[in-house]
Amino acid sequence: VINFASQLLFYETFPQNLFDFEKDLLIIDQWVDQQYPAIAKKFKYVYRVQAGESLKSLTAFAQHVEAVLDLWDQPLSRNHCVVSCGGGSVGDFSGFLASILKRGLRLVQCPTTWLSAIDSAHGGKTALNVKSVKNQVGTFYPAESVLLIKELLQQQGPERAQEGLGELIKVALTDQPSFFHELTKNPELKHEDIIWQNLERAIQAKNKIVLQDPFETKGLRKILNFGHTLGHVIEAHYQVSHGESVLQGLYFAIEWSAKCGLLPEAQSKVIFQSFEKMKLQSWLETNQFIPMKLARVQQLVMFDKKITSDAKIDFVFLADFGLAKVMPVTLPEFLSEVHRQGWAVDV
Amino acid sequence: VINFASQLLFYETFPQNLFDFEKDLLIIDQWVDQQYPAIAKKFKYVYRVQAGESLKSLTAFAQHVEAVLDLWDQPLSRNHCVVSCGGGSVGDFSGFLASILKRGLRLVQCPTTWLSAIDSAHGGKTALNVKSVKNQVGTFYPAESVLLIKELLQQQGPERAQEGLGELIKVALTDQPSFFHELTKNPELKHEDIIWQNLERAIQAKNKIVLQDPFETKGLRKILNFGHTLGHVIEAHYQVSHGESVLQGLYFAIEWSAKCGLLPEAQSKVIFQSFEKMKLQSWLETNQFIPMKLARVQQLVMFDKKITSDAKIDFVFLADFGLAKVMPVTLPEFLSEVHRQGWAVDV
Repeated sequence: VINFASQLLFYETFPQNLFDFEKDLLIIDQWVDQQYPAIAKKFKYVYRVQAGESLKSLTAFAQHVEAVLDLWDQPLSRNHCVVSCGGGSVGDFSGFLASILKRGLRLVQCPTTWLSAIDSAHGGKTALNVKSVKNQVGTFYPAESVLLIKELLQQQGPERAQEGLGELIKVALTDQPSFFHELTKNPELKHEDIIWQNLERAIQAKNKIVLQDPFETKGLRKILNFGHTLGHVIEAHYQVSHGESVLQGLYFAIEWSAKCGLLPEAQSKVIFQSFEKMKLQSWLETNQFIPMKLARVQQLVMFDKKITSDAKIDFVFLADFGLAKVMPVTLPEFLSEVHRQGWAVDV
Repeated sequence: VINFASQLLFYETFPQNLFDFEKDLLIIDQWVDQQYPAIAKKFKYVYRVQAGESLKSLTAFAQHVEAVLDLWDQPLSRNHCVVSCGGGSVGDFSGFLASILKRGLRLVQCPTTWLSAIDSAHGGKTALNVKSVKNQVGTFYPAESVLLIKELLQQQGPERAQEGLGELIKVALTDQPSFFHELTKNPELKHEDIIWQNLERAIQAKNKIVLQDPFETKGLRKILNFGHTLGHVIEAHYQVSHGESVLQGLYFAIEWSAKCGLLPEAQSKVIFQSFEKMKLQSWLETNQFIPMKLARVQQLVMFDKKITSDAKIDFVFLADFGLAKVMPVTLPEFLSEVHRQGWAVDV
């Protein structure tokens, strides 16, 4: 039995007494280490990594494992703990490493980006990339606990907080109706304060879905892909951040849900007005995106979903606050809506 | 919840209707493939490997994954099945691969050596090596089912059957008292017939232990290391087969158990007489082993157990038929017994 609901530990600053600093291994994003050298100073065993997709390369993985094993000058046993301190790529890498060393060491995630604090540090998915294909290998290996450290997270600046709102809004819209209203009731607050105040609820909302479908066998976990179908296409084509892409993807999915009569017009209006009040609308409009070619969208979505052109896409629509619906759409249906909303032109 | 008791399927020849030959991936030892080309001919997707420890190298692993993914010309999903057809190294490799591709494909083991049919195909351990250190990474990933195919297994010849008896006797001695008596009651039979007749019981005896301690957290699973402490040293130093080494290790452990008064003299006599009747004694005596240096034994056992010289070894003693006892011994205690039994000399 694997426990998919990691213990959540909220701290103002990095905790003094949680780890065995003589024994546990800290894997830390070197950028975070530069900002907060005090964390690595506590640990005897420290492995510094450069965050980003290249860290998740399977080809480079053997060298990382050898370097980590060389670090340890004591017999490695399964009760050693890996502490991952970084964003999504560092968490994916560390989690996978911890899951296979000695067939599984203990694992604690300490996300340092809002995106990972809200989303990727939870739910137990670890992953590496094979050649350019993301997350082709991985394990289900939830962390024992996830540390949410205010001081570390607030270090990121307003742009990162804005990006984090994408995943936060995603999960709020698919959770109980009250969550989205709670999230948007004080739109004048700083984005990082909105996230910090709603962080625990967002994590629990995600975990609720994960616990119903931990190994992604029932389709339920697909709800978490809300906003991500077009989101991934935008992220890959325009090379913009994951958070911004997801927010664009949410707009797209909500607009589509309204257009096909699934989501009442009044509801989509409330959502879009909240976005405006939170100044997300204006943020998204700063980028002037040149529409993609339809063939390019098709190529990217097929690659992302690893599907053939005659396969259906499980698209996440919204029918009401708290009511996401996963429905199969054909590739032409998806492309036609992408075209209608102005993201793509013919040819 | 992971099911550690794989379904056991006994067949005379390779089954015709068990797999989706258009979809499942066969990973096969190329030597087995040469003997039995009919198996690979059934499958659309076949990956041929060279058995042996080099197959388990983590450094080479990324290339294997890329080659396997290149093979598939359809979208890979988690209900694709990996069928592993080979001995221990092939099973370890295929099992690990299956456990991490898309975070876990379906897995069927089809062991082709007696050793893997009795032991390594069961219990859910997969493993790769890091540099020269065996099984440093891996997963707990039991096969859905294990195929035991008489025709394939009997292909191996008498030497391999003799080797298989080591693991079979190990598990029989630690199971119910009746098992060892059953196993040895017709010592004149061909070794392969003895194994085939007792195979299911041996597997179930192992699974019984595994199910009580699937993730090796309670120490119980250590019983399965009976005979393996000196066994691994002998295997590494004299470069003899795993089966022969384990049998030598069993002799050593039984002799030590008797010497320290744990196992009644009468019992050890019965065991050793059975070995003689099964012509194992004479087999083991064909090799004239030059005693090792004590320092060499120490080095090998420390490397194998990944321990420091002041650490204790959990040694598996036998107190009675069906009664293995894991007890901590110091390295000097172990070395002194190795010396006493003539496996090592001073300096």
